[in-house]
Amino acid sequence: METIDRKSGSALWHQIGEILAADIAAGTFAAGAKLPTEPELMERFGVSRFTVRQALGHLEQRGLVRAEQGRGTFVHRGALDYMLSKKTRFSKNLIEQGFEPGGELLIHEVVAASERVAARLKLASGAPVIHRRGVMTADDVPVELGDSYYPADRFPDFDRARLQYQTISAALASYGVHDYVRLSTEIEARMPSAEEARLLRQPKSAPVLVILKVDVDSAGVPIAYAETLWSAERVTFKVDLG
Amino acid sequence: METIDRKSGSALWHQIGEILAADIAAGTFAAGAKLPTEPELMERFGVSRFTVRQALGHLEQRGLVRAEQGRGTFVHRGALDYMLSKKTRFSKNLIEQGFEPGGELLIHEVVAASERVAARLKLASGAPVIHRRGVMTADDVPVELGDSYYPADRFPDFDRARLQYQTISAALASYGVHDYVRLSTEIEARMPSAEEARLLRQPKSAPVLVILKVDVDSAGVPIAYAETLWSAERVTFKVDLG
Repeated sequence: METIDRKSGSALWHQIGEILAADIAAGTFAAGAKLPTEPELMERFGVSRFTVRQALGHLEQRGLVRAEQGRGTFVHRGALDYMLSKKTRFSKNLIEQGFEPGGELLIHEVVAASERVAARLKLASGAPVIHRRGVMTADDVPVELGDSYYPADRFPDFDRARLQYQTISAALASYGVHDYVRLSTEIEARMPSAEEARLLRQPKSAPVLVILKVDVDSAGVPIAYAETLWSAERVTFKVDLG
Repeated sequence: METIDRKSGSALWHQIGEILAADIAAGTFAAGAKLPTEPELMERFGVSRFTVRQALGHLEQRGLVRAEQGRGTFVHRGALDYMLSKKTRFSKNLIEQGFEPGGELLIHEVVAASERVAARLKLASGAPVIHRRGVMTADDVPVELGDSYYPADRFPDFDRARLQYQTISAALASYGVHDYVRLSTEIEARMPSAEEARLLRQPKSAPVLVILKVDVDSAGVPIAYAETLWSAERVTFKVDLG
């Protein structure tokens, strides 16, 4: 029987969840593998079925495992491979790997550009920008939390245009931006804020990958700046340095 | 005066270090900016000069600030920008940004390839591989901890060749590998092990970026696989998706 620290500040189910998550990360349980049964886990950790279920529920919330009715609990097919390319499109990347893409818009507002945003969009600090925050999902698990910024003067009534057209590309085309390319892509990692962890449905103690990207129109003028956060335990970025 | 939790398990100097590190990460103190003086910090946190010095020393160890004799403590010039490209060379990247590159070899051994390493090098699992672990520094701050693997059968006596030639490229050329290119580059983030954090001289509570890369010779045969860990608070990767 494995030793769990019953006097530690951390709940039993949480400690067991962390041990199993570490096993998954280390490949002890590979993608697609069946986890030990509930009785086996009760035996291994010396805890009740209730505690085991809490631990497994926590792992499912994090998108690491999936319970299948009557069959058991399986390690999720593993990290999403995400190809970063000049014209990366979220849905295409996911569909090609057999994931069902989805998303939800959380914020749409016009705000004064912060210094950071203004610098990337080559606007004066404080210039009006459209700020959109959304969560993108793969098989209903949140994988990307994105904040996008567009110059408001160039795209008036952008919310209406965005509703009218199915994609961002089509909405931009309605303003005469028929083509745009990636100017710069930067990659960082950090710990999430409590709010970011909640929206990504991941623990606060696990890092996020951050992509900072600027898109420009065919004349080289910035039309969009985005900061997207990815749950690091769910994604591997691949870059083609061709 | 800011409230420090004197009853928390964490030492005062450590808590103050974390607050200042968060200020630096948030841009409250920008790259190159002078931190408040020791008396100002003593006042702000209600602690002794000794505690303030411990906190600043800790930040300097982490490469976040630099004390300049008689002038004060300054925020380090900030995150290293590291351009990932098909022929990324560590030294060139650093020198162009005015950093002094350095490094130390920690391990050189021949081991049986793990499944993961064998798969990347297209060898049979257990085949002999040269394993080299080294730490690379920028201005004496460790930024990269790398484990590299080479097929041992193809590069016999690699340690001698490596000593004889100044660069990896020259050592490989002595085996007839005159040119090699990046086959694949993957980017992940995770928390470091205690050993990794120690070698990178960073806190265990801060994430690392991981680059997984395979180099192939002109015939497309893998000649090297490397996993490099980067202290995430010290680096931003830039990718040219040209």
